Amino acid sequence: MNELDLIELILHETSGYVKAKYAGRTRLRVQEKNGANDLLTEVDVAVQSQIVNRIRHSFPTDAVIAEEDGLDRRPGAAPPRCWVVDPIDGTQNFLRGLFPAFAISIAFVRDGEIAAAGIAMPVTQDLYLAERNCGATRNTQPLQVSRHADLGRARVEVDFSLPDDRGATLETLGGVLHAAGQLRCEGSAAVALCAIASAEAEAYLHVGLRPWDYAAGQLIVEEAGGTSSRLDGSPLRLFDAQEGILVSNGAVHGALLAHLSAPHEPVHAPE
Amino acid sequence: MNELDLIELILHETSGYVKAKYAGRTRLRVQEKNGANDLLTEVDVAVQSQIVNRIRHSFPTDAVIAEEDGLDRRPGAAPPRCWVVDPIDGTQNFLRGLFPAFAISIAFVRDGEIAAAGIAMPVTQDLYLAERNCGATRNTQPLQVSRHADLGRARVEVDFSLPDDRGATLETLGGVLHAAGQLRCEGSAAVALCAIASAEAEAYLHVGLRPWDYAAGQLIVEEAGGTSSRLDGSPLRLFDAQEGILVSNGAVHGALLAHLSAPHEPVHAPE
Repeated sequence: MNELDLIELILHETSGYVKAKYAGRTRLRVQEKNGANDLLTEVDVAVQSQIVNRIRHSFPTDAVIAEEDGLDRRPGAAPPRCWVVDPIDGTQNFLRGLFPAFAISIAFVRDGEIAAAGIAMPVTQDLYLAERNCGATRNTQPLQVSRHADLGRARVEVDFSLPDDRGATLETLGGVLHAAGQLRCEGSAAVALCAIASAEAEAYLHVGLRPWDYAAGQLIVEEAGGTSSRLDGSPLRLFDAQEGILVSNGAVHGALLAHLSAPHEPVHAPE
Repeated sequence: MNELDLIELILHETSGYVKAKYAGRTRLRVQEKNGANDLLTEVDVAVQSQIVNRIRHSFPTDAVIAEEDGLDRRPGAAPPRCWVVDPIDGTQNFLRGLFPAFAISIAFVRDGEIAAAGIAMPVTQDLYLAERNCGATRNTQPLQVSRHADLGRARVEVDFSLPDDRGATLETLGGVLHAAGQLRCEGSAAVALCAIASAEAEAYLHVGLRPWDYAAGQLIVEEAGGTSSRLDGSPLRLFDAQEGILVSNGAVHGALLAHLSAPHEPVHAPE
């Protein structure tokens, strides 16, 4: 079984479990991580454990980096073989939200380059997959980003992050907030990136994402014909210790970069 | 058949039609109304026509006010019996959007007071109904707003409107954008108001809504225990020619009003 096959298998297995837990979400145990707006449920932990065990069974010497449970390392140099996992991206939406805008996200990284990726949306059972240089699919259908090039007509997905970073977000994205045709904020990077790959949106911006939030989505968008960068236009590399990202259909990328002011780009020491 | 029964019947009839059209949405004819970000599809027109015909058949002398097709009047004084209809709230999401955040909205207004209301979400087939002083339901289950009173933990739904009004939106809502625990922008007032009634969000703000955007949702939230007002805290009345609205679970209402600055409140002459 190659890496993409493993991703697909794991997403099939975990997606049904998450769907069932979503139906009974009012009965879940919930903890706060970094304050009241950053939550952790027993489902995040159980799904991550299931994914990590599966990966270690098939590829026991590979590194695994994941959002929960002490696996949230960001190595300065990429390990030669590494998996990047978010068991539930959009935990707030998993707990509250009329529409199930949350997803399971898994990427496989070889020598620092995302080589294979998958995102599952448990409630709709949509499955997005991509392999480097082989294209991206949703439920086996090939994906292609939109060609819309006019920012004044574009649908731009943003995220306002937690209240502590809100000022930096509003300052950095201010120009985009004025210029974009439509703005949406759904609270899940993985969902927003799948929307771009599906030609349902043109771009996504965030000032403070960690690798597990966007690794899989980045490859899916790029393989659907889109573009990614840091907020200063430099290449988006998973482990460069920066946090701002801009992912787009390509056609609106330059216009968005021109509207960003003094990107808020905290630089962290490698962990 | 009373007014609420008629609303329920109409929503059942139109919801299936809209769901089918959503599945084939890439083949629809689309026109621009007030620019590229304000769209009209053949489905908006067909659904409105179906709703209006049904109302006129049952209550031939009642007034009907609706978003499309020349029925978008805003009378200075409320007619004694009046229906307020939005065939599809969230047309952009109907055309593009991974999650189907759009709805059909119908309210019946007696002597200026919203007396009965219904909102259908075609894809999920969820049906929200409310009758003045009789409570609100989703799929026959009673609804109750959340009790969350801390704005720093609240989920606040906002809408950034069209690019021309964006500056006014960012200025008026600036304090809220900094203070709210989480921000979401899904692009449909009806959906956001149903989220509040369902205890999935605490508040919704918009600087420029028309009566058909919120009439049904307002009653559904109020009957689920929530509160509504203009952005200056004055009562929310459908035909007062103002456009800013704040609808909440009640518990965060005062904190939100305190964070609003110089509400952008264009006053229109009655049409």
